[in-house]
Amino acid sequence: MSDTLTNPATGDGVEAAGSIVLGDNQYGKAEVRLVRVDRDKPRHRVTELSVTSQLRGDFTVAHTEGDNSPVVATDTQKNTVFALAGEGISSPEEFAMRLAEHFTSSFDWVTGGRWGVKEYTWEHIPTSLTNNAADGEHNHAFVKGGTETRTAVVQRDGDEVFVVAGLEDLKVLKSTGSEFHGFPRDRYTTLVETNDRILATSVTARWRYLRTDIDFNAAYDDVRRILLETFADVHSLALQQTLYQMGAKVLEAHPEIGEIKFSMPNLHHFVVDFEPFGLENPNEVFYAADRPYGLIEGEVKRSDVAPEPRAWATVTGFC
Amino acid sequence: MSDTLTNPATGDGVEAAGSIVLGDNQYGKAEVRLVRVDRDKPRHRVTELSVTSQLRGDFTVAHTEGDNSPVVATDTQKNTVFALAGEGISSPEEFAMRLAEHFTSSFDWVTGGRWGVKEYTWEHIPTSLTNNAADGEHNHAFVKGGTETRTAVVQRDGDEVFVVAGLEDLKVLKSTGSEFHGFPRDRYTTLVETNDRILATSVTARWRYLRTDIDFNAAYDDVRRILLETFADVHSLALQQTLYQMGAKVLEAHPEIGEIKFSMPNLHHFVVDFEPFGLENPNEVFYAADRPYGLIEGEVKRSDVAPEPRAWATVTGFC
Amino acid sequence: MSDTLTNPATGDGVEAAGSIVLGDNQYGKAEVRLVRVDRDKPRHRVTELSVTSQLRGDFTVAHTEGDNSPVVATDTQKNTVFALAGEGISSPEEFAMRLAEHFTSSFDWVTGGRWGVKEYTWEHIPTSLTNNAADGEHNHAFVKGGTETRTAVVQRDGDEVFVVAGLEDLKVLKSTGSEFHGFPRDRYTTLVETNDRILATSVTARWRYLRTDIDFNAAYDDVRRILLETFADVHSLALQQTLYQMGAKVLEAHPEIGEIKFSMPNLHHFVVDFEPFGLENPNEVFYAADRPYGLIEGEVKRSDVAPEPRAWATVTGFC
Amino acid sequence: MSDTLTNPATGDGVEAAGSIVLGDNQYGKAEVRLVRVDRDKPRHRVTELSVTSQLRGDFTVAHTEGDNSPVVATDTQKNTVFALAGEGISSPEEFAMRLAEHFTSSFDWVTGGRWGVKEYTWEHIPTSLTNNAADGEHNHAFVKGGTETRTAVVQRDGDEVFVVAGLEDLKVLKSTGSEFHGFPRDRYTTLVETNDRILATSVTARWRYLRTDIDFNAAYDDVRRILLETFADVHSLALQQTLYQMGAKVLEAHPEIGEIKFSMPNLHHFVVDFEPFGLENPNEVFYAADRPYGLIEGEVKRSDVAPEPRAWATVTGFC
Repeated sequence: MSDTLTNPATGDGVEAAGSIVLGDNQYGKAEVRLVRVDRDKPRHRVTELSVTSQLRGDFTVAHTEGDNSPVVATDTQKNTVFALAGEGISSPEEFAMRLAEHFTSSFDWVTGGRWGVKEYTWEHIPTSLTNNAADGEHNHAFVKGGTETRTAVVQRDGDEVFVVAGLEDLKVLKSTGSEFHGFPRDRYTTLVETNDRILATSVTARWRYLRTDIDFNAAYDDVRRILLETFADVHSLALQQTLYQMGAKVLEAHPEIGEIKFSMPNLHHFVVDFEPFGLENPNEVFYAADRPYGLIEGEVKRSDVAPEPRAWATVTGFC
Repeated sequence: MSDTLTNPATGDGVEAAGSIVLGDNQYGKAEVRLVRVDRDKPRHRVTELSVTSQLRGDFTVAHTEGDNSPVVATDTQKNTVFALAGEGISSPEEFAMRLAEHFTSSFDWVTGGRWGVKEYTWEHIPTSLTNNAADGEHNHAFVKGGTETRTAVVQRDGDEVFVVAGLEDLKVLKSTGSEFHGFPRDRYTTLVETNDRILATSVTARWRYLRTDIDFNAAYDDVRRILLETFADVHSLALQQTLYQMGAKVLEAHPEIGEIKFSMPNLHHFVVDFEPFGLENPNEVFYAADRPYGLIEGEVKRSDVAPEPRAWATVTGFC
Repeated sequence: MSDTLTNPATGDGVEAAGSIVLGDNQYGKAEVRLVRVDRDKPRHRVTELSVTSQLRGDFTVAHTEGDNSPVVATDTQKNTVFALAGEGISSPEEFAMRLAEHFTSSFDWVTGGRWGVKEYTWEHIPTSLTNNAADGEHNHAFVKGGTETRTAVVQRDGDEVFVVAGLEDLKVLKSTGSEFHGFPRDRYTTLVETNDRILATSVTARWRYLRTDIDFNAAYDDVRRILLETFADVHSLALQQTLYQMGAKVLEAHPEIGEIKFSMPNLHHFVVDFEPFGLENPNEVFYAADRPYGLIEGEVKRSDVAPEPRAWATVTGFC
Repeated sequence: MSDTLTNPATGDGVEAAGSIVLGDNQYGKAEVRLVRVDRDKPRHRVTELSVTSQLRGDFTVAHTEGDNSPVVATDTQKNTVFALAGEGISSPEEFAMRLAEHFTSSFDWVTGGRWGVKEYTWEHIPTSLTNNAADGEHNHAFVKGGTETRTAVVQRDGDEVFVVAGLEDLKVLKSTGSEFHGFPRDRYTTLVETNDRILATSVTARWRYLRTDIDFNAAYDDVRRILLETFADVHSLALQQTLYQMGAKVLEAHPEIGEIKFSMPNLHHFVVDFEPFGLENPNEVFYAADRPYGLIEGEVKRSDVAPEPRAWATVTGFC
C-alpha cells in the first residue's frame, strides 16, 4: 500500500501553504438511541432518547497530523451516554447538562461542546383485562405516543451553559378560521384571495431558557399546551400572525424563556374544483399537496434580553 | 426525432416472437391525498385519506399497440376519487367499495381492480380558551393522532368484492413480561437465553372481512383494542406466541373476520454491558437497535373458512 | 408480575375455540447489512448487501405454546449470513441459494424459506494522483454508484428452488418522444391530450429465472442494459406500451427468463402555464409533481411456460 | 365562528406586554421542484432543481396585525421561480442570484433573503440502438446520476450577495488505508485500536465563494474531483485528518474560495467476530452499522480572510 498524499506531519505540503488553517470544529457520536426503564415500582416508566454528543476544544493535531492523543473516541462518548443513563434521566435537558459537565470536567482540553437530545413518548396501554393495571392502564406495556418529538440542545462554552428546548413535527390543522387576502399582486401573481381556507402546519419550535434551575418537564408540557391552544384560538389572517401569537403567549406565560423561534411550513390544502364535473364543492373536499409548501420562519423575543448567539450556534431555529 | 424500435402495431417485431404475451396487469393513480371536512355542524369532522385506484380488465391494445381507447386516464381516476369524496366518506372500506362499483359499472371493459386506502387520524385539540369548544375540545382545530395508519384494500373481480382491513406501524413495547429461551443451538448460535427482556414491535396487521354489511369503523376500533390489550396481557415466551394470541383473540371476538395476517418486526433492545465500566445495569439501560431486526410473520385463520387468494393478491400480508 | 391471558399450553382458551388455527408463517432476520471486501489482489472488490433470511417449516409449538425448541434464533440466522459471507459472494442469487441450502440441510423441520438480498454498488474512484491506481482508478477507494438497487429473492420449498431477480428505483426520463391521447372521456375527464410530453418513471422490475446454472451477474447486466435501451428507443404512446416493449425485449434475448413483472410509476411533469405571466413556455419548464402519480403494473410472459406461484409468493411484483 | 384570542390590532393584548417583539424572520416557498429542458439542439439538456425562496425585509404588520400588504405571496414566489427558469438556467448559483436580484429590485421593502437550490443530475442513456444518438448516447433519454446532490445557497443583504456552494450525500469508502489508535483511554473506553479499518462517510461539504464572476459549474466539478481524489489518496490516521486534507487541497487549488466546512459521519463497519464459529475473518466480512455513527465536523479556512457570518446564517455547515 502506498497512499501518496501522505501525512502532513512530514513537514512539507499543507504547512507550506501558510495561510490555510483549521477553523471551528466539533466531533462526537450521533444518534445514540437508548431506552431507560425505571422499574423500581410496579408501574414502569420508559424513556426513549436519541442522544448526540459532540466535543469542542483543542483537537488541532488530530486534523493536521493525525495524532489522536486528545481525541476522546466517539465510541467512548457513546459508552458514557449509556453509563450516565444508568444514574437516571429526569429530563432531556438535565441529562444533556450532566453529559456536558462530565466531559468538560474529565478532559482538560475539552472546553465545551454540544449535546442534542430527542425524546420519543410512550404511553401506557389502556386495558381492562389484567390484574396489574392501575387506573385502567397496564403497568409495563406501552404504545408509542403522538407524532411530535421533544428536543433539547445544550451547548457549553467553558463554564457557561446554554439550554434550548423545543419540539418538532407537531402537526396541526384548522378546518376553518383562517383567511388570506390583501397581499400585493404583480405580474406573476395568480393566487386567488380567500376568507375561508384550511390552515395546516407541522410546528418546529425552539426556545431558550434563561435559567437552568427549572422543572424542564413541567415547562415543556405547558409550552406545548400554549402552542396548541393558541393555534386553535387565533382567527388567522396569516400564518405569520398565528406564529407571532403562539410565541407571544409562550413568552407572556414563561418569564424563564428568553426567546422562541419557529419554522412552520404552510401545508397547502387546495379546494378541488368540481365545476368541470357539474358539481359543487362547498369547501368540503381538498387536495393535500406535498411540495412545494410555504415556509414561515420567525423569532419572538424580549426587547430587554440580550441575544446569545452561542446558544443558537448549530441550532438556527430556521431551516 | 426518429425513435427506432417503433410501434409494434406495424406488424413486425414483437408479434413475430409468438410466445411472448401480456400477463396480469393493472394501472391507475396512486396516493391521491384528500382531506374531507364535514362542516354541517359546528363541531367539524376531518377525514384524511391517501387513495390508490387501480383498474383491471382488457387493456391489451394499450400494451401491444399504444392504443389508449380503453385506458381510463389515471387523471380521470384521480378526479373521480375527489368527486366521489364529495358525497361523503363513512369509512375507508365503504369509500373503496363505492369507487369499485363506480369504475366497474361505468366502463364495460373494466372488470375489476384494486382500491387501497390509508387513513390518518386527526384529534380535536383540547382547549379551555375558546367559546366554541364542546367538552373541552376545539370544534375545528385538530392535532395529528398516533403513529399508526389504518388501511383498507378492496379488490373486485366481476361481481365479487373482497375487503381486507388493517393497520400499520402500531408501535408497542413491553418493559418486562417477555422471555426467550429453549431455542436450538448450533455452531453459529451465540445468543444468550433470557427470562426478562424488552419486547417491542411495530404491528402491521391485515384481516379479511367475510361480509360487507359491517360497521367498519366499530370493527376497526375493536380489533385495534384487542391487539393492544392482548399484546399487553400475554406473558410472552416468543413473539410468535404473542402474534398467535393476538390473532386468535381477534377471531374469537369477530366472527365476521375470516383470517388475520401479521408482519411484526422484533425491534431489539439490548441490555448495555456495564461490566467494563465497573457498574451494574439491572435491566435498566438498553441500546435500541435499528438493523437488523427479527421479522415474525404469520396468519391465524379458521379451519372451516376456505382461502380466498383473490382477496390477498397484491396484499400478501407478509413483507 | 401476573400477566393474565397466560399460556395457551395450559389447555383452556385458544384450543377450545376449535376452529382457530395457525396458517402460513415464516420468520427470520431482516436487513442484515454486510460488506465483504475481496482483498486477495491489490485492486479490492467491495460487495455491500442487505440480506433478509426467513425460515419456513413446522414452528407450530412456538405459536401455540411458546415452545422455542424448533426456533432457530433470528440471531443465529444473522450469524450464519455473516459466516457464509466469509466463503465469498459471487452474486446475490448464488449467496441466497447457499443460505437456503444451509438452513434446509441443517435443520430437519426447516423445509424451506425465503432469502431476499439487495445489493448496492460501489465504483472505484477515478484518480490521477496515486501510484497504486490501475487504469486511472484507485485500488481501494470507492464512491457509491447509481440510485438503483439490485434485488434477488430465492424461495425454497423442499428440494425446489425459485429465483426471482430484479432491480428497484432505476430512474429514467425522456424529454420528448412520448405522447398520450385517444383515451376515453367521461364526466370526470379533464386531462388534455398531448403529443409531446416528458415521460419519467422509476423502474421496479422482477424476473424469474427458469434455471439456476446461470452467470447471474452477466444476466443482470444485460437485462439492465436492455431495459435502459428499450426505454430510450421506444417512441411511447403509453407507458403501458413502453413497459410491454421492455419486457418483450428482455424475454426475446433471455430464454432463461420465464416472465418479467414491472411496477412503474408515471412521474408526472406538468408544463407550467406561462400565459398568465404574458410569456411563452415552449415545453421547456415543467413542474415535477410528487403525488399523486400514475402507477402502471404489468407482466410480460411466455405462453408456453407454466406459472409458478411459489416463486412469486411474497414477491408479487406489483405494489 | 368566534375564535376568541382575536386580532392584536384591536390594541389590547400583545402590544400591552411591551417588551415582547418580533425578531428575525423570513418566509417563502420551499422545495419548488422544476425540470427545465433545453431543446434547441437535438441533444437535449435536462436540469432538475429543487428551489426554496425566502424573503427578508419589513414584514412586521403581517405578524402583529395579520396585515398582508407587504407579503409577496409564497405562491407568487413559486410562479416567479418557474417564470425565471424560462429564461434559462446556467448554474444553481447564477439562478439563485437572479432570483435574489428580482425580488429585491421588485419590492422596496424586500431588502434581502435566502435562495437555496438543490440540483439532481441526469445522464444520457448509453445506447447502440437508435439512429439519433451521438457518441453512443441517446439524445433525449436520461438515467438518474449518482447519489449526491449539488447545493447552492445565495443570501442577499441589501446590495451584498453571499454565495455558498456545496454537495450532500457523496458516499465514499476505503477498504484499507485507514487506522485509528493513540486515543486516550478512560473508565468508559472499550474501543480496540486498529491499524487497518474500513473508512466510510457521506460527505456534506459547503464552501463560500469570495467572488461571483466565476464559472460555477467548472468550479463545482473541480472541487468534487479534489474531494474524491483526496479522500482516496490520504492514508488516514483519523477521519479528522482526511477532512482537513480535503479542505486544504480545495483551498490550495481554488483561491476564489474563502473557507470550506464539512459534516462527515463516520459510518462504522465492524469486523464480524468469527471466533465463536471456529472460523477466521481476515478483515473480509464487516457489519455495516446504521446508528449510532461518529460525526466529524470542521472548517478549513484562510487566516487572512475575514469571517462573514451573513453567508453562513441558516447554513451552519454543521448538523
